[in-house]
Amino acid sequence: MGDILVIGIAGGTGSGKTTFTNEVKKRLGNEVTVITHDNYYREHHELTYEERTRLNYDHPDSYDTEMMVADLAALKRGETVEIPVYDFATYDRSNETLVVPPSRVIIVEGIMILTSPELRSLMDIKVFVDAEADVRILRRISRDVSDRGRSLESVITQYLTTVKPMHEMFVEPSKHFADIIVPQGGRNEVAIETLVARIEAHLANS
Amino acid sequence: MGDILVIGIAGGTGSGKTTFTNEVKKRLGNEVTVITHDNYYREHHELTYEERTRLNYDHPDSYDTEMMVADLAALKRGETVEIPVYDFATYDRSNETLVVPPSRVIIVEGIMILTSPELRSLMDIKVFVDAEADVRILRRISRDVSDRGRSLESVITQYLTTVKPMHEMFVEPSKHFADIIVPQGGRNEVAIETLVARIEAHLANS
Repeated sequence: MGDILVIGIAGGTGSGKTTFTNEVKKRLGNEVTVITHDNYYREHHELTYEERTRLNYDHPDSYDTEMMVADLAALKRGETVEIPVYDFATYDRSNETLVVPPSRVIIVEGIMILTSPELRSLMDIKVFVDAEADVRILRRISRDVSDRGRSLESVITQYLTTVKPMHEMFVEPSKHFADIIVPQGGRNEVAIETLVARIEAHLANS
Repeated sequence: MGDILVIGIAGGTGSGKTTFTNEVKKRLGNEVTVITHDNYYREHHELTYEERTRLNYDHPDSYDTEMMVADLAALKRGETVEIPVYDFATYDRSNETLVVPPSRVIIVEGIMILTSPELRSLMDIKVFVDAEADVRILRRISRDVSDRGRSLESVITQYLTTVKPMHEMFVEPSKHFADIIVPQGGRNEVAIETLVARIEAHLANS
């Protein structure tokens, strides 16, 4: 196996980064492996369910980034890794794992991935998917209220008390480290095609 | 000749957009033609030199954009065009013209090119090269004072009285129309390689 291309795809809540990532992956198939920072939410078996629901999940420290760095480094060495699976229902790491074989292209996706110097140093291309704050909160409301059955009030409270301040403190400044910024994320066909062409060039040469 | 790919490359003064454009062009050679909005500064033979130096060159109306739109449309039809040449010494259009043959890739470069809906509608990929305002003004000072022999005071006055307000009124809002934003413009090797891969994919398919 030749060189491995690692692409980081970051962006705030509701920016369209997951749609963007899925669109890129869809066009390239099994040559591309996606690993998500959300899989690496820290385990908190020592806390009760109630205590776990009150943790701040929008702070970089809520992720076990050291573990993700180790897994990504192993994938870059051509090793197969077993990555954790997070259970959003219990707010804790599940007992399952996901077996991830190495591939020639790895996409690392997550809101906070560009905040970590160690993660950044493993990436060849750093993408930040961007959207205006009003568009992002409307997408989050649609997702959390319509798809996940949360109350509008709880979404607004969580957004104003943790999501927004953490975004401004960590996510927005991490845009500074991006090589490419993709506005209007998920439906930006031109940016999707451009990144796909870059990945295909890598696959043709490796 | 197959389809023609038109790429717009915009960005404020000192953003590195010209360096970025030159780097992309350098890697692709004669398959790529660059046409610059600056060539289309309006002619003002009716004004004196003194009057011409006092015009606002940072407003979209200072460009003959209709002419550029017509030339670009002709190039897209596969025609050869003769584009104007601007003389920065006399602040007026010169008597020379530049003969531009059609090519499979055309880059349209300029600070204001994304402000025109007609120009935008002719572009397949809209790139905005971005840099922080302090970095941009320092580059402009280096260029105008060191390379062009202007006084520091005149550069600062021009920047604060016209360049900056026009940037905020026209250039910055036009970023909204970009498909891809390139931070740290001219030296952003990752973004250069990514756009080059997209152009090479076009050349391979057309």
